[in-house]
Amino acid sequence: MQFHLNGFRTGDPSIAEAVAGEMPAGPDQLPEEVDVLIVGCGPAGLTLAAQLAAFPEIRTRIVEEKAGPLTLGQADGIACRTIEMFEAFGFSEKVVKEAYWVNETTFWKPDDRQRDRIARHGRIQDTEDGLSEFPHVILNQARVHDFYLDVMAKSARRLRPDYSRRLTALHVTAEDRAGPGPDHPVTVTLSHRSPEGAERSETVKARFVVGCDGARSSVRRALGLALHGDSANQAWGVMDVLAVTDFPDIRLKATIHSAESGSILIIPREGGYLVRLYIELDKLGKDERVSSRNTTVEALIAAAQRILRPYTLEVKEVAWWSVYEIGQRLCDRFDNGADGAIPHVFIAGDACHTHSPKAGQGMNVSMQDSFNLGWKLASVIRGQARPEMLRTYSDERRAVAQELIEFDRAFAAMFSAPPKDPNNPESGGVDPAEFQRYFVKQGRFTAGTATRYQPSLISAPPAHQHLAEGLPVGMRFHSAPVIRLADAKPVHLGHVLRADGRWRMFIFSDRADPSNPSSALRLLCGFLAESPSSPVRRFTPAGADIDSVIDVRAILQQGHRETGPADLPAFLLPRKGRYGLIDYEKAFCAPLPSGEDIFTARAISPEGCVVLVRPDQYVAQILPLNAHAEIAAFFARFMLDQAQPGSP
Amino acid sequence: MQFHLNGFRTGDPSIAEAVAGEMPAGPDQLPEEVDVLIVGCGPAGLTLAAQLAAFPEIRTRIVEEKAGPLTLGQADGIACRTIEMFEAFGFSEKVVKEAYWVNETTFWKPDDRQRDRIARHGRIQDTEDGLSEFPHVILNQARVHDFYLDVMAKSARRLRPDYSRRLTALHVTAEDRAGPGPDHPVTVTLSHRSPEGAERSETVKARFVVGCDGARSSVRRALGLALHGDSANQAWGVMDVLAVTDFPDIRLKATIHSAESGSILIIPREGGYLVRLYIELDKLGKDERVSSRNTTVEALIAAAQRILRPYTLEVKEVAWWSVYEIGQRLCDRFDNGADGAIPHVFIAGDACHTHSPKAGQGMNVSMQDSFNLGWKLASVIRGQARPEMLRTYSDERRAVAQELIEFDRAFAAMFSAPPKDPNNPESGGVDPAEFQRYFVKQGRFTAGTATRYQPSLISAPPAHQHLAEGLPVGMRFHSAPVIRLADAKPVHLGHVLRADGRWRMFIFSDRADPSNPSSALRLLCGFLAESPSSPVRRFTPAGADIDSVIDVRAILQQGHRETGPADLPAFLLPRKGRYGLIDYEKAFCAPLPSGEDIFTARAISPEGCVVLVRPDQYVAQILPLNAHAEIAAFFARFMLDQAQPGSP
Repeated sequence: MQFHLNGFRTGDPSIAEAVAGEMPAGPDQLPEEVDVLIVGCGPAGLTLAAQLAAFPEIRTRIVEEKAGPLTLGQADGIACRTIEMFEAFGFSEKVVKEAYWVNETTFWKPDDRQRDRIARHGRIQDTEDGLSEFPHVILNQARVHDFYLDVMAKSARRLRPDYSRRLTALHVTAEDRAGPGPDHPVTVTLSHRSPEGAERSETVKARFVVGCDGARSSVRRALGLALHGDSANQAWGVMDVLAVTDFPDIRLKATIHSAESGSILIIPREGGYLVRLYIELDKLGKDERVSSRNTTVEALIAAAQRILRPYTLEVKEVAWWSVYEIGQRLCDRFDNGADGAIPHVFIAGDACHTHSPKAGQGMNVSMQDSFNLGWKLASVIRGQARPEMLRTYSDERRAVAQELIEFDRAFAAMFSAPPKDPNNPESGGVDPAEFQRYFVKQGRFTAGTATRYQPSLISAPPAHQHLAEGLPVGMRFHSAPVIRLADAKPVHLGHVLRADGRWRMFIFSDRADPSNPSSALRLLCGFLAESPSSPVRRFTPAGADIDSVIDVRAILQQGHRETGPADLPAFLLPRKGRYGLIDYEKAFCAPLPSGEDIFTARAISPEGCVVLVRPDQYVAQILPLNAHAEIAAFFARFMLDQAQPGSP
Repeated sequence: MQFHLNGFRTGDPSIAEAVAGEMPAGPDQLPEEVDVLIVGCGPAGLTLAAQLAAFPEIRTRIVEEKAGPLTLGQADGIACRTIEMFEAFGFSEKVVKEAYWVNETTFWKPDDRQRDRIARHGRIQDTEDGLSEFPHVILNQARVHDFYLDVMAKSARRLRPDYSRRLTALHVTAEDRAGPGPDHPVTVTLSHRSPEGAERSETVKARFVVGCDGARSSVRRALGLALHGDSANQAWGVMDVLAVTDFPDIRLKATIHSAESGSILIIPREGGYLVRLYIELDKLGKDERVSSRNTTVEALIAAAQRILRPYTLEVKEVAWWSVYEIGQRLCDRFDNGADGAIPHVFIAGDACHTHSPKAGQGMNVSMQDSFNLGWKLASVIRGQARPEMLRTYSDERRAVAQELIEFDRAFAAMFSAPPKDPNNPESGGVDPAEFQRYFVKQGRFTAGTATRYQPSLISAPPAHQHLAEGLPVGMRFHSAPVIRLADAKPVHLGHVLRADGRWRMFIFSDRADPSNPSSALRLLCGFLAESPSSPVRRFTPAGADIDSVIDVRAILQQGHRETGPADLPAFLLPRKGRYGLIDYEKAFCAPLPSGEDIFTARAISPEGCVVLVRPDQYVAQILPLNAHAEIAAFFARFMLDQAQPGSP
């Protein structure tokens, strides 16, 4: 955490100085115009709101139909990749502290000798070693909301949701393709319900609107888009319970396939006592809806008791329960840009894709949707990037949703199939060992670390991947530990990737002494500091800190006691803020006391390389250290020149 | 974190359910009677308040002369041991996140070739490997206060300080030695200053009063006690600055001895820019006070610039500065129990001992003072322990303060002495290499991990130390990682030592299968669960959870996949709370995936042993697994029998 740059301040440094001048509108009034209107306070909406709240100059509002914050959520699985993102928002440690950690998963099937009893046949580590520096955890969605709301409330605009507001109409003014369109082309009408129940209509004009309003999205409907897909005619029940059982794996994630009574997925919950059970119910008839069954929680409990035999389950309290049917549905596109125009309305999360909850993907993929969108919106609104960049959102995230839905279909089918009986193999079903193998194979996917964005305006083809095989272009930057040069602190390099809208340029240096004027590091820093074609010079606004658009960091191969700040080029000791203080956190050393090294861990060439990382933590480009022109060209594709000191 | 035991609750689980019935008195009124009145909202007072807030049945109030919380504190060093304690209070991660980490220290002396320039002659790791699982950090004292205030506000009584209150009188009713004394023998008179400046007198009767009111303690004065010691006639300046410098170690802790201009200690501060400088000023004349010098901050800056030559220092902002003189003073006793009666008034922190700030010990030792006292007060007030236990506070903490003062005197003298000139050794001074050696040697002391309490009513002689050489009796329990059996989570065993007033019994098992009925583990658990002389049975109140007074945990030598909850004795799967839910967090496994093992790390005998740990995390006793009678006898020395089910 860096703070006090512009003067010492007392109090909590995570609370930003409030924007002066403009009063943030209160909960009972929406401004007439906003830059971004977010519809829906779910995980996707709050991720976006927290992201946009990082920019004091962007006017964001987020509206929600409910009267207040969520207190009891349905989603609970939090993938490793998601916690990497939470780290960027500054609250990973809260989640890691409070959540249940999914460390291992066990597999149960009918006992071969006595098939009306279940027996354990497998046990695996849940997340492979080294996949992420964070664990896979389980935490009530409402707590994730709380943490986002806290980030928003501490932002310069003290952003808070506007509750009790239902979208009733959305209209987009057609863009004049030959010239600039209207400043605020989207008009949204909302119905605001007072605590007394009176409805009042409000109209807001927005530059951009994002529908994070769930599977029944009003925004999606207003765009004339629909979810396509089907239901699998399989009903499931889910319940969060406080219970007494002699089932030995009640504090482990466990999949249980009984011979005749169906399947259960056990997900232990935070706090040490609560547990979630996903329970397979009867097949539904064609066109039958689960709601027609009038399933009771007693029926769920009885089904769980049958499946768990010979173990007992005595439910003491049901915190929450529901029944649902599995289905996988997907929207054709995630924005209103079908006509080739710049999109101004987007949808994210369940508004674009729905699937079964058991793989714990829904909340995670939804948050990654809007994390992908947020920095793009901010770049365009702040005048840093060309609006064409916004088209990459639908392309990138729809491909991820498509993969998710295919995975979910296969996983759900396998989960619902009866286990193959080794005494009677011709009766069909899924081999439990096969199920376990599939589960392991998909570990990276469910951890959220398998996403790979295709080459686009903002992501290059992997022409120089051999320079850093462990940092695949298009995939999230996989962090590893390093030592910060100036203060000898062991840190995770990836944790400099804050959710602040900045691009990062990691310069993995070669072995040359960084004080050598002809070293590749010095030459590159010289280019970045001085060349008229330097992207740092071209795209940083006059008067802004030199690292405010592209944040350059160097990783040296020297040990931190072999070199020091005095050996660094001045570009890596930038003077910042009102006092021109030196930022000492730009340089790191690879060798760790343990003998490990990020060059080894991520297969980075000893010749070094430059790794460009997007504001959403995805690797966009890898280039040789001397590829100055290519570095310049990469950013010039989508960034906009800024007024420089002395320019008109 | 364990929660939801007595039913699912939404929201932040660290917020306790408010005590029903009794309204916590508002900020403008003090109750007539309290159990504990704490005077002073410094580190010692807040540690005590946070500790007592853990017990809803104890009525605590804390008063403070200032009108509100501290915003800018003078103390900033936080030792490893202190963060271990913060972990027990549940906020270590906040401190570790926000603070500067002291990773390495460098040593500078006059350049041998040109003695008017300083040159680096040493660099060391600040804290030896494995000394603690936490780092040594630097953080503004006011933030530590904030974290404690948050713990207090979230407690069942929503404890908040009563500000603007000055102690004007304190009177203790003499105890009738032949029988029970008055319930609330201490009468305190306070002057409450309203925001408008009006003074109003208030009287509070208390069972116990604790003076945490600093070096000029009113409570100490009321007891007729005084600080003894002397001043060293050496003036120092201290300033927190935002500055630009080319001194390369500005982000490392650095000690600098110049040839002619004096010494500086550099302490980098949180946030990446702020730095603290302790600057040696002129010697004071005999009986001269530093305040008479009228030193200015400009003079401090000029002195720093002279000492740092040839490096430059350009100060942009001074966040805080002060001048002080070094002195070491100590009180003869820390309570009012000089006459052999049970003490009812205590003093803690600077009220008992003062010394120089440079070793970063003051805040740490003060907090450990009241952490030592808090659980003892709680045990007595809750009727769990004999009041005689309270005498151990002054004995234990005065010995620590005595050591601190001796260390500080030597360290300060060495710091202030001029560096020996190798070209002119007969002119005297301290060899810089000698200073560095002393610094390293005292590392454990300054980390706060060297404290060893002597045998007493609550701490046994180390007769069985050979069973766990790495867990010295009388010293703080040195944590090590283990795997929790039921959910395979890697955890630090020491982190089960919450600040909740409970004793812990760690049963380090032998190699026998825990399911074997004749194993030492099973026999010991059988004794604890069933014997009439079991301390768990004797000292746990009827109706309370079985672990509410003595929390028993087992550490197995088996790997966590070799055994499971089904192998454990029922005593290690206790049924708790209103539903009788099973607590699965009592058993751990020693073997880690890395091959490490707590038995090896702490030199615990493969034959196993029992380690009894006090509520303030200090090892009180080590015994063989079969020493049932000795375990019972240890607790019987100071604990009180509780009414058992069926007893009158």
